[in-house]
Amino acid sequence: MKAKIIVTPKKAVVDPQGKTVQNALEQMGYRGIRAVHVGKYLEIELDGTDGEAVRRQLDQAAHDFLSNPIIEDYRLEME
Amino acid sequence: MKAKIIVTPKKAVVDPQGKTVQNALEQMGYRGIRAVHVGKYLEIELDGTDGEAVRRQLDQAAHDFLSNPIIEDYRLEME
Repeated sequence: MKAKIIVTPKKAVVDPQGKTVQNALEQMGYRGIRAVHVGKYLEIELDGTDGEAVRRQLDQAAHDFLSNPIIEDYRLEME
Repeated sequence: MKAKIIVTPKKAVVDPQGKTVQNALEQMGYRGIRAVHVGKYLEIELDGTDGEAVRRQLDQAAHDFLSNPIIEDYRLEME
């Protein structure tokens, strides 16, 4: 089983990394870029088949220490 | 339009960040974790509707300076 966790800064939070990438893209000649957000991507390979239990555990882990819920959102996908 | 770029270390490359997250999860009591890979996630909001042209440009950008093709793979998704 494979789980994917995507952690992104909340929309209201300043995202200097995203702003830097946006500026870089514009200086390289790319036009029409409205915004860039930079986040973390975690791919977790798992034993086991009980998707629901694993999802609950990982959701807890993502909330407790893989993301900072004050300034970040996360999205958990199971495959 | 929205583009998503996911940059991950190649499988053959040592991923100390992923290993650290794996160890942390195990120490927190999570079992059955085979591997963790940590990567970057970029979300790009774009003007324009010519999906194919934009995809080509972003693919070039991802290859040229958003990832390091020697040690990283990237995946580009358009929405």
